[in-house]
Amino acid sequence: MTNPHRPAAKGESAEATRAMIARRQQLLGPAYRLFYENPVHVVRGEGVWLYDPDGNAYLDVYNNVACVGHCHPRVVEAIARQASVLNTHTRYLHDLVLDYAERLLSYFPPDLGHVMFTCTGSEANDLALRIAKAHSGGSGFIVTQNAYHGVTDVLAGMSPSLGASMVLGDHVRIVPAPDTYRSGGDVGSAFAEHVEAAIGDLARSGVRPAALIVDTIFSSDGIFPDPTGLLKPAVEAIRRAGGLFIADEVQPGFGRTGSHMWGFARHGIVPDLVSLGKPMGNGHPVAGLVARPEVLSTFGARMRYFNTFGGNPVSCAAGMAVLDVIEGEALLGNARRTGEYLRTGLDELAARHALIGDVRAAGLFVGVELVREHSTREPASEAAARVVNGLRERRILISTAGPNGNVLKIRPPLVFTCENANVFLAALDDTLAEIERI
Amino acid sequence: MTNPHRPAAKGESAEATRAMIARRQQLLGPAYRLFYENPVHVVRGEGVWLYDPDGNAYLDVYNNVACVGHCHPRVVEAIARQASVLNTHTRYLHDLVLDYAERLLSYFPPDLGHVMFTCTGSEANDLALRIAKAHSGGSGFIVTQNAYHGVTDVLAGMSPSLGASMVLGDHVRIVPAPDTYRSGGDVGSAFAEHVEAAIGDLARSGVRPAALIVDTIFSSDGIFPDPTGLLKPAVEAIRRAGGLFIADEVQPGFGRTGSHMWGFARHGIVPDLVSLGKPMGNGHPVAGLVARPEVLSTFGARMRYFNTFGGNPVSCAAGMAVLDVIEGEALLGNARRTGEYLRTGLDELAARHALIGDVRAAGLFVGVELVREHSTREPASEAAARVVNGLRERRILISTAGPNGNVLKIRPPLVFTCENANVFLAALDDTLAEIERI
Repeated sequence: MTNPHRPAAKGESAEATRAMIARRQQLLGPAYRLFYENPVHVVRGEGVWLYDPDGNAYLDVYNNVACVGHCHPRVVEAIARQASVLNTHTRYLHDLVLDYAERLLSYFPPDLGHVMFTCTGSEANDLALRIAKAHSGGSGFIVTQNAYHGVTDVLAGMSPSLGASMVLGDHVRIVPAPDTYRSGGDVGSAFAEHVEAAIGDLARSGVRPAALIVDTIFSSDGIFPDPTGLLKPAVEAIRRAGGLFIADEVQPGFGRTGSHMWGFARHGIVPDLVSLGKPMGNGHPVAGLVARPEVLSTFGARMRYFNTFGGNPVSCAAGMAVLDVIEGEALLGNARRTGEYLRTGLDELAARHALIGDVRAAGLFVGVELVREHSTREPASEAAARVVNGLRERRILISTAGPNGNVLKIRPPLVFTCENANVFLAALDDTLAEIERI
Repeated sequence: MTNPHRPAAKGESAEATRAMIARRQQLLGPAYRLFYENPVHVVRGEGVWLYDPDGNAYLDVYNNVACVGHCHPRVVEAIARQASVLNTHTRYLHDLVLDYAERLLSYFPPDLGHVMFTCTGSEANDLALRIAKAHSGGSGFIVTQNAYHGVTDVLAGMSPSLGASMVLGDHVRIVPAPDTYRSGGDVGSAFAEHVEAAIGDLARSGVRPAALIVDTIFSSDGIFPDPTGLLKPAVEAIRRAGGLFIADEVQPGFGRTGSHMWGFARHGIVPDLVSLGKPMGNGHPVAGLVARPEVLSTFGARMRYFNTFGGNPVSCAAGMAVLDVIEGEALLGNARRTGEYLRTGLDELAARHALIGDVRAAGLFVGVELVREHSTREPASEAAARVVNGLRERRILISTAGPNGNVLKIRPPLVFTCENANVFLAALDDTLAEIERI
């Protein structure tokens, strides 16, 4: 038996960290990556805080998975209680999967009437692709230039953000994200034109489109939440061509944007399929796919779907508890208010730090784009990495996004407060000043 | 807040079940399936027992996921404790993923030196395919005639057991399983010849083989555990052609066969990749892929792998607790002893019931093949369905396997006792007698 909560090894050295990294390499192999030049060793989490073995607290301004806060007691209790009562699969009848399905669907427009359960966002997106192919009869997919949709074989081939060594699938076409910082005018129309061009390009290869799949806040492309409504023309374009629109809500979903539960709702559209993941169980492996019944009918008539762990009672209990906390602690409102406060603070920093070229935000999903010069908007990729590592030395956790890695990705648990925001803003101010001095 | 453990609705009617099925159809859509003509509504699980809302106990002779018994207190406690302390991802350092990786690898031959964590067996197999393609430079896969390897797009296209409506991938070839009941002689050599023919067929299509992937007990093909060693010639054949051998241990793994922790070990081979799933966390969504370091190196040099929930501390705590219980309660030995007892009892039933054509077993994984006539070995598919439903009416849970659904699939939790086996054998005797009377 191992003690999962080892006593803090006071004064853990850089050497101990190196030994741990070597052990990791030896056991997990070469495909795993760590955050930071000086990786963080975590042993405990609570609310917006993570703790290292020395008891140092790290302010978590990055992890959307722990959406209601690390180790929220209500979620922990729901998991513990249900795990002690029953945990089995969906080929027997049980109430909780139905109660949770009903509850979850109550947050969607009535046209989205079915939900299927998986364990990860990757599985949800992979299932979405299967359903889109069955329904449309097509096989072509359109994704954004730096999209990330998951790690299965097919999804990795639709995720250019995995890097140049990832060969995209033959039936995949990429379109630029609606970059409001680098392109003026009506980004929604421009995005739709790119989608139409991709549909045309697929047609010239004899490929009918199955779907346009979009992270509705363009997380890995660099976070582009605005203007609301921008997705509408593109959704119309893919539907005219016989394809579906899949909203990947794995990152923007569950209230993060502050105004709505789902990113797509900000754009006044109703997708054909909606994939859910990361924050759904506050860390428990639960994910799902919400669908228009008419879209699911073709797939369902031909294929059965069974996911051994998907929709099990413990996962549903975790998911239900997360919704309870989002409601009970009014976290949508908190995401909106704290998000606005944070954004105002970042705008103030932008006025004083030339490195900041643009601040883009919806609720508690914020991108801060760093540039070498405002006139050229040349990405300050190296500076962004230095900010992330500089903040880590100040025990603040964030990361980067965008094809050039020059957009600070700020995405804290939804329980983040204005006081937390002040701590973060002061540390960012300090870090930027330090970088500018050099 | 929902009560996951509703009070038993005494005397639940067929009407209530129908209403629940209708609600399920309405919420989850058309792709979900239930077991049994008269589906079972479960509310509680303990050891080898599942309970319905009326408090009726069902003997679980089918669910390998709850391998150490439903709701085993040690596993529940490990999950509850770790969920209250920390649950985050592998881009920070934490000890438990390393401790668990080390522990898990200690059950493998030293050549298998790395483990990567996913949430489901499907994700593990999907990752195995990606790694096999990267390492071999090939793209062809060979699977058995009624294989099941998972639900991702690519894996569904390699899982003929999903039915005729599932179109297999272009680069997939099928080979007959080593059916010791229907083919005489050296099944291992015959199996290897089929694999060689499939390699040749791929070559004629200009496709180089990436891997042969095999469930090492041929679960969905009808359960063919013997003779031990049968896989050796086929593994040599695929390696000669430059492909890898992937052992799918999602069903036979974690001690089920009674003699070894892994099905491949019964055959005296060391695979290149080994996928793990279902029983790994006793129901908690944890799975993994064990690899030879040299096989992982090509993939790892080019690609990073990140699975948001994979290898999180709670999943590792669950996995560690399962290993603790397998060791602490000596469940390998129990699987062997109880499996032998069960097999003897089934052989006795076979002597009295003409429906039983063959009994095949390794530990607590047993297939009982039903035939219409011993001379023709014509599959008794309808009778098998009636046995499964007849046992369900006697509150005994099993299912079927094989391309004709005529093999009773008997795969209880590893804590199954000889007393439990007596209950099952008596009920099976009774059910078979009833069917034979008609």
